[in-house]
Amino acid sequence: MMYSLQCRCFGSAGTKIQRNPSFATLNSDDITYFKGVLGEKNVVQDEDRLEFVNADWMHKYKGSSRLLLLPTTTDEVSQILKYCNSRHLAVVPQGGNTGLVGGSVPVFDEVIVSMSSMNNVIDFDEVSGILVCEAGCILENLISFLDNQGFIMPLDLGAKGSCQIGGNVSTNAGGLRLIRYGSLHGTVLGLEAVLANGNVLDMLGTLRKDNTGYDLKHLFIGSEGSLGIVTKVSILTPPKLSSVNIAFLACKDYLSCQRLLLEAKRKLGEILSAFEFLDSEAMDLVLNHLEGIRNPLPPSMHNFYVLIETTGSDEAYDKEKLEAFLLRSMESGLISDGVLAQDINQASSFWRIREGIPEALMRAGPVYKYDLSLPVENMYNLVEDMRVRLAEKAKVVGYGHLGDGNLHLNISAPQYDDMILAKIEPYVYEWTSKHRGSISAEHGLGLMKANKIFYSKSHETVQVMASIKKLLDPNGILNPYKVLPHSLTSY
Amino acid sequence: MMYSLQCRCFGSAGTKIQRNPSFATLNSDDITYFKGVLGEKNVVQDEDRLEFVNADWMHKYKGSSRLLLLPTTTDEVSQILKYCNSRHLAVVPQGGNTGLVGGSVPVFDEVIVSMSSMNNVIDFDEVSGILVCEAGCILENLISFLDNQGFIMPLDLGAKGSCQIGGNVSTNAGGLRLIRYGSLHGTVLGLEAVLANGNVLDMLGTLRKDNTGYDLKHLFIGSEGSLGIVTKVSILTPPKLSSVNIAFLACKDYLSCQRLLLEAKRKLGEILSAFEFLDSEAMDLVLNHLEGIRNPLPPSMHNFYVLIETTGSDEAYDKEKLEAFLLRSMESGLISDGVLAQDINQASSFWRIREGIPEALMRAGPVYKYDLSLPVENMYNLVEDMRVRLAEKAKVVGYGHLGDGNLHLNISAPQYDDMILAKIEPYVYEWTSKHRGSISAEHGLGLMKANKIFYSKSHETVQVMASIKKLLDPNGILNPYKVLPHSLTSY
Repeated sequence: MMYSLQCRCFGSAGTKIQRNPSFATLNSDDITYFKGVLGEKNVVQDEDRLEFVNADWMHKYKGSSRLLLLPTTTDEVSQILKYCNSRHLAVVPQGGNTGLVGGSVPVFDEVIVSMSSMNNVIDFDEVSGILVCEAGCILENLISFLDNQGFIMPLDLGAKGSCQIGGNVSTNAGGLRLIRYGSLHGTVLGLEAVLANGNVLDMLGTLRKDNTGYDLKHLFIGSEGSLGIVTKVSILTPPKLSSVNIAFLACKDYLSCQRLLLEAKRKLGEILSAFEFLDSEAMDLVLNHLEGIRNPLPPSMHNFYVLIETTGSDEAYDKEKLEAFLLRSMESGLISDGVLAQDINQASSFWRIREGIPEALMRAGPVYKYDLSLPVENMYNLVEDMRVRLAEKAKVVGYGHLGDGNLHLNISAPQYDDMILAKIEPYVYEWTSKHRGSISAEHGLGLMKANKIFYSKSHETVQVMASIKKLLDPNGILNPYKVLPHSLTSY
Repeated sequence: MMYSLQCRCFGSAGTKIQRNPSFATLNSDDITYFKGVLGEKNVVQDEDRLEFVNADWMHKYKGSSRLLLLPTTTDEVSQILKYCNSRHLAVVPQGGNTGLVGGSVPVFDEVIVSMSSMNNVIDFDEVSGILVCEAGCILENLISFLDNQGFIMPLDLGAKGSCQIGGNVSTNAGGLRLIRYGSLHGTVLGLEAVLANGNVLDMLGTLRKDNTGYDLKHLFIGSEGSLGIVTKVSILTPPKLSSVNIAFLACKDYLSCQRLLLEAKRKLGEILSAFEFLDSEAMDLVLNHLEGIRNPLPPSMHNFYVLIETTGSDEAYDKEKLEAFLLRSMESGLISDGVLAQDINQASSFWRIREGIPEALMRAGPVYKYDLSLPVENMYNLVEDMRVRLAEKAKVVGYGHLGDGNLHLNISAPQYDDMILAKIEPYVYEWTSKHRGSISAEHGLGLMKANKIFYSKSHETVQVMASIKKLLDPNGILNPYKVLPHSLTSY
């Protein structure tokens, strides 16, 4: 088997992993068995189709699986896993394959179990707003489905056109609505998951309150397919509200951004739905590298920009409320300038600045990307520290979901350079660890950061994770080499 | 050892449990050891003090422990558990001892580890609203502490004057604010917990987003102290909002209540903070058995009453919004009558009706109480079914947190009577199970319903729970006889 792992941006290229010799290699009897369970057409060996599912969308990670399985029912998933477990065939569960950490593609020759064909809405209760669906439903399709019912999904992501709800749940996806609707640990009410041995765990409750025993579904939220394959999801969806307003603001320093966040939470409280920030370096990048974008607050003498979105049920009132808030913030000096979107085009242009940063960074050249959670008060110190460390060698850019304490630290360099990388890593991870932050706010660990977990989690805690992995997947067939350190899962 | 288990109301009096013979019995060396670790005064053998902590507040459950330990640090908790584990001494963790299912008192001679002396606020970040504190902090004290900072706790309970945050977390307490702020699985950001072997799991993150490995804290939320002792908690607290409005409404039928809930979620959306309901039987009870209460909507020809509370940041506007909503609901026929509280006294009198129901029931005589989660659309059918089953034998009362799908089914009888009980159980549990409901919405299973878990959870799921229990507490010393069926935990 060929093994190819490209991980340029993150400096993990040197990571060497051996294929676990306890895993079996696929043979013709296996294929015959799977065809018997799934039918000919759902057992895919075609090279072109395999090429597509072996690689992640960034083309950073690439496996060499010879088999893609497309189950259409939970029972089929159960039969697949039971068989793979008895045969010691490793498996990688795959949703929309939009992950950023190499979690959704094979590392070697793992069998790919795609959930794409399990894409039905099972039930929607318009009194409670509870949606029950199969794991392979594409997020955007669910959003459209709910829109017709007057509801929204409690999460929204850039990848919504491809990502699947089962993958969202398995990676505990964050996204743009977290500040308002919280994490999936709060909104997912139930799951159905298939364990490595084929046992189906029916935890598909549709109840907001259920205190009968341990709430096992949380083990499967964010475990990246390494404890079981999520086959069905029930999720609480909020009603769609009619009024959305967006303001683009400037602050003179990071402390003002923090204070503005506090005031926004207090004064806009129930209608606040996004609080994003970017620094002037991020703004410069966007202005220099994307077309048709202008700074709504010229001249660009501001150090920080904040995008505030409100979502409520009363257009006129919400706007008036936001205007009053902005006026007060201007008077008190928290913001030095600001503009409220007057129509949907202006609103889109504000969002385009914030959402355009990753694209602008890519166009600017080589970039080292970090997705960190940090206490809000310390968050920006890391950006400033990095500027001191790197001096003229690279441009350090800070932006992200300030309201959630999630910093996207990006370092834009003239070229990929081990000297630069050595200035960044492990310093960034150590800094994050020292401030009790998280080295992965929303992307997960996948293959990329499996061995870096100790920067964010204690040894005792990781040891318990490993023992739970061993309990639920004793042969280690589910998404091997990922999430947990290889030293703890090579059994 | 004496064993006394009184469980009159719930018909579980016949439950027979044997003391697990693998547990050791306390000896004088143990006492010497504990005094060495905790100091004389925190090792309590005094009969009167033991009497108090051996019994629950309802005097339904009573153990016969000879020892109460009062650790003041996590390290002390760790030393206690490590020792108890090696000696096979069973332990019951205790918070404010306000539980309703016999989960917080010993069944036999378990050592009581009270968290009462670990009651410090460790940190509060007013930008993020994140509170970090020790497990023994009393909920009401935290509410007061936050009030001074302009924040509130995301949960509120009748028992707030006694219950402790560690107990709230360990039982996944629900309460009055769940419809607005969600469950503790969403608001608790981090925990510190001590395992049976004394290992301390530091999961005390203060981050809204952290996708580094399995989110183990959820195992300890709602596991009723059977997997570890929660020693510290970090929790996201919402800003205190200035405007609270309360309306008391009448609906002609249950379908109207459901539709009103849907409209309220859509039209009041972001300010809705409570949606409670009671039926006319509940209203009659309150009017007949409590003093100084009058029906705000006479003559009492209404079948259902709904209490709606809004909490927002703008007094005048919120009231106007609620008034407009009520007017529309009246015009469309969803409500047949309604009144908006004009001052805080009237608001209190509305809440008094809803909160007074349990007291009125107690005064009315013997009562069989059930705390159920059910799909909102079916919820009230159970009340009607029970009326048919019981006919003239007892009065069936339905009320609860409609917004959360939580029904409090209460059956008020002339006397406790096995014939009546046989009409109720197992019918209520079977009915709940058939509708995929939960036999414990917020109270937990404790000792009372440990053997009834299968009504709400599948065998495969409970089996995994038992294997996790065995993994984390191989000697079964933590809160034995509770949560899980005795057949699975008697090892």
